[in-house]
Amino acid sequence: MALTVAFQGERGAFSEAAANDLLGASIDVLPCRTFDEVFAAVHAKSARCAVIPIENTLAGSVHRNYELLGDARLEIAGEVLLRIRHHLLARHGTRLAEVRRVLSHPVALAQCQRFLAARPEVEAVAVYDTAGGVKMVMESGRADEAAIAGAPAAALYGAEILAENIEDHRENYTRFLLLTDRADAEEIKQRVGVPHEKTTVLFRTPNKPGALFRALAAFALRDINLTKLESRPIEGRPWEYSFYADIGGDARERNVARALDHLREMCETVTVLGSYGAASSGSG
Amino acid sequence: MALTVAFQGERGAFSEAAANDLLGASIDVLPCRTFDEVFAAVHAKSARCAVIPIENTLAGSVHRNYELLGDARLEIAGEVLLRIRHHLLARHGTRLAEVRRVLSHPVALAQCQRFLAARPEVEAVAVYDTAGGVKMVMESGRADEAAIAGAPAAALYGAEILAENIEDHRENYTRFLLLTDRADAEEIKQRVGVPHEKTTVLFRTPNKPGALFRALAAFALRDINLTKLESRPIEGRPWEYSFYADIGGDARERNVARALDHLREMCETVTVLGSYGAASSGSG
Repeated sequence: MALTVAFQGERGAFSEAAANDLLGASIDVLPCRTFDEVFAAVHAKSARCAVIPIENTLAGSVHRNYELLGDARLEIAGEVLLRIRHHLLARHGTRLAEVRRVLSHPVALAQCQRFLAARPEVEAVAVYDTAGGVKMVMESGRADEAAIAGAPAAALYGAEILAENIEDHRENYTRFLLLTDRADAEEIKQRVGVPHEKTTVLFRTPNKPGALFRALAAFALRDINLTKLESRPIEGRPWEYSFYADIGGDARERNVARALDHLREMCETVTVLGSYGAASSGSG
Repeated sequence: MALTVAFQGERGAFSEAAANDLLGASIDVLPCRTFDEVFAAVHAKSARCAVIPIENTLAGSVHRNYELLGDARLEIAGEVLLRIRHHLLARHGTRLAEVRRVLSHPVALAQCQRFLAARPEVEAVAVYDTAGGVKMVMESGRADEAAIAGAPAAALYGAEILAENIEDHRENYTRFLLLTDRADAEEIKQRVGVPHEKTTVLFRTPNKPGALFRALAAFALRDINLTKLESRPIEGRPWEYSFYADIGGDARERNVARALDHLREMCETVTVLGSYGAASSGSG
């Protein structure tokens, strides 16, 4: 039976490409309108996995997904880093000079600001997803419309590429996480098939000076590398923070397990979100 | 002579409200199209100050401004936290049921997704600034157009509020920084007139396990509170990070000065971006 993977956006979204990099081409997909619906689909067992963007080199962290990740009882089973290339796509026969409306996700529009600013005659229309914009352009039948999206969406909807790589900055990468129910995690990780070289942990420090320092001691004293640290304010508790940390190693290694025990001593709450590895990107 | 303050967006932008909170109502303003232009205006001395958004509770950090702040040799002279309330604004006589196009900044459109999703007949048009969207609606003369922006833009352009507080989440705050040339900083800080209760410092740790832990020791060992820590990857140097830290106290206090000396021992580079205080918000 094929594995069903939920993601935000229409078929052809960057998240779908990430899902293929992680799990191969023979998966069933469940496109969802919002990130909340993606998480709900896994909880309701209408999908066994979810693939979500968690940070972009230009736009930063996807805060809503960090929040959902903190609330959900899901496990991270893998990650993949995708190079994001934005193209201007349209129906065959549309000429660049005739385009007056460009549809895309607000973040994609913001990442192509220079291209749009050079074309004041073009109106930028915000839609809920990059691939969804392509679908709308193809269905509308208008000769003055185009969409900003990635190459997979062009192929899927049979759109023509009018302008390539129109993003403001080339260093545009998005990191996607693969999530699954804790009971399924081992099986899914085997399917991803990469060594578990990192562990993501969520912890909350007490509200006193030096609290983060004491928490990080758990890793530093054991020479465990900290590859990412993201602080999130705790709602209604000013000056208190939750931290998401990516550390080197698998939580089942003795050294890492001891560090996590040490961290639990220093913190109010500690949640291990998963030990996993990075799949390589076929589209990067 | 009135002080000239540069900000991104049109007159009536949230940044202008922040500038008034920091420096009072009798300032000259220099609206700029991009953040790059805002920084350039201060460097070229066409403005003595700049006011920029640095983080939003929903959208997260404004990464481009962290980058520009790291490159610029400007000093932070103050900050203010603004409650962001989005309203639907239109020309007098426009009825909510007749609205078919809504103009706003992509981030504002994303923050009002629920309001827009409930109105599938409405097209969301991305423009470079919230207040700029209001200006365009007022000038277009179309009865089916509205804009999403704050109350100051409504007042400035004489727009009517069709729907109030349409943002998805109420906990929508943006922190703005006041920047100025280092030579001017003392004078500007006196004008802001609040005690310097915090210091922002930018530091780069060497690429080895425990480097951040050793850096934070400079503050923790002196009971100096760390109120914010933001990591930014260093381009072209994977797994190496710059950190922006907000710490309690003024860099001229002995305890803080010693901590900064200690930090310089542990880090490759340390830049003190300013000691300053928070103005209170009249619009919050």
